Amino acid sequence: MRKENDKMQGINVLVVGTGAVGSFYGGKLAEAGASVSAVCRSDYEYVKENGISVKSVDGDFIYRPVEVVKSVSDYSKTPDYIVVATKVLPNINVVEMIRLKVGKNTTIVLLQNGIDIEKPIQDAFPDNEIISGLAFICVFRTGMGQICHQDYGRIVIGSYPKGMTEKLKNLHKLLNNAGVQCTMDENVVSARWKKLIWNAPFNPISVIGGGINTETILNNKESLNFVKKIMAEVVALANTYGCELSDDLIDSNIEYTFSMKPYKTSMLLDYENKRPMEVEAIIGNAVRLARGIDFKVPNLEAVYAILLLLSENNV
Amino acid sequence: MRKENDKMQGINVLVVGTGAVGSFYGGKLAEAGASVSAVCRSDYEYVKENGISVKSVDGDFIYRPVEVVKSVSDYSKTPDYIVVATKVLPNINVVEMIRLKVGKNTTIVLLQNGIDIEKPIQDAFPDNEIISGLAFICVFRTGMGQICHQDYGRIVIGSYPKGMTEKLKNLHKLLNNAGVQCTMDENVVSARWKKLIWNAPFNPISVIGGGINTETILNNKESLNFVKKIMAEVVALANTYGCELSDDLIDSNIEYTFSMKPYKTSMLLDYENKRPMEVEAIIGNAVRLARGIDFKVPNLEAVYAILLLLSENNV
Repeated sequence: MRKENDKMQGINVLVVGTGAVGSFYGGKLAEAGASVSAVCRSDYEYVKENGISVKSVDGDFIYRPVEVVKSVSDYSKTPDYIVVATKVLPNINVVEMIRLKVGKNTTIVLLQNGIDIEKPIQDAFPDNEIISGLAFICVFRTGMGQICHQDYGRIVIGSYPKGMTEKLKNLHKLLNNAGVQCTMDENVVSARWKKLIWNAPFNPISVIGGGINTETILNNKESLNFVKKIMAEVVALANTYGCELSDDLIDSNIEYTFSMKPYKTSMLLDYENKRPMEVEAIIGNAVRLARGIDFKVPNLEAVYAILLLLSENNV
Repeated sequence: MRKENDKMQGINVLVVGTGAVGSFYGGKLAEAGASVSAVCRSDYEYVKENGISVKSVDGDFIYRPVEVVKSVSDYSKTPDYIVVATKVLPNINVVEMIRLKVGKNTTIVLLQNGIDIEKPIQDAFPDNEIISGLAFICVFRTGMGQICHQDYGRIVIGSYPKGMTEKLKNLHKLLNNAGVQCTMDENVVSARWKKLIWNAPFNPISVIGGGINTETILNNKESLNFVKKIMAEVVALANTYGCELSDDLIDSNIEYTFSMKPYKTSMLLDYENKRPMEVEAIIGNAVRLARGIDFKVPNLEAVYAILLLLSENNV
């Protein structure tokens, strides 16, 4: 592997958004031999000195970015990959954040939640390759430069809007080299819709339902029914956008959730910690896609309205 | 008025549910000269000794029930009117509560919230007259035998399911004699639906939205929209049940609410004080009426599911 790693060292990766997800996969890419640098704000001094400690079910490791910078503009190179792992929030302007270091050959990797999140990036950088990525992972920031990887870790990546490219294959190879279970999906938009089938009901209901976990949601007949209706709206909307998702995904997502340990969603953790929730990325964008074609999604509309109220009042 | 009051003294009224609403109107009926008795549970000793003090915007008064009893069965007479002013909750069995004192000529007056709440009473007492009543009043219990009447006080009463009767006219006269602004409605079911147009959105959203008042709900574009959609479902459902409500009621209810002082709904006050909410009376019954005829009310269904979750977890 030494030789392969040496070759990988020519690959420059800049990770923007050094929360748990960005740090975990940034660390993995470094492990695979890429030259990974990190934009850190609050943890800057600490990370520059100590790196980021990752306590992981798969084995602890310390991730030392090649460069630790306070903002993208301080990075000394033009990256081959710029990995965006920030939350998707109205007040985070990713385009402006990364613009200065998006070179002609820079591939923008979006490792973020939600649906239709690639659009503003594509509009701003129409000539750059975009890779859209979905992380299925339980990982938390536990303190300054400290990450805890509790479970899972699978990642799905795909060229946006679709297809297969060299840059995608290389990223896939890097991640696999680091032991990450990474899958390439030629239709990553469809993969996002599939993930939304779960996220669209469980994230909002966990918050709206009064701070409850997946088990509590499933054990109430009415709310289980509500979950299914939201899922059905997501499937129908995705199909209207040409994704051909099967209705079977509703039952399989429910069964899967029954089999999971009781789980607090990321949206609920954000709400409880008075951090902004990804309402627009997960629900608002879907609602707007539906409104745009006059497609009725009353259950999504309902949770959207309520989440906006809760967001406003959770400061 | 003395003579009239003397005549009224022949009228025996038993009030069941001596919360704020029951105490206020019980007191008014007593003021009008009826022989009003009260079933008290927690306040029994205090009320027997001191009566109920009503601090009212329209003038304070003390209401001394003729008999204060711990349960309906302890009442010495058979009432002309048995006024039920309990909350409508799954664990309150009104039928069993009043059965022993419902005589052949006893009129059952339901002074309660919600829609379709008369059905179980009618089924249990098919030969008794039922008067359904809606109180538009801000009144709270502030302590043992203490009531505070803050605003409003209007009441609409009607023979259930419809029509005009002597007993209804007498009750109307009594209440008016006591200065209560009382209206008779020949179609009280329709009046209940009209009240539901307001209650169905504002009560749930005030709770689900994180403990917010009417002003906060109106000031968020998405939640205002959500309010309107729930109102539209109530109007459409009512019309399906033959009530002929106009869509104009949606705008007039919204305008009315804009004109009100910011207001915490009764459901929110219940939620905040960890008292059971009238989810079934206000939302569940409407949802079941819709389901029964396969009429789609997705927004009502959504708030119903969430309220059940919140109820379960608010103990």
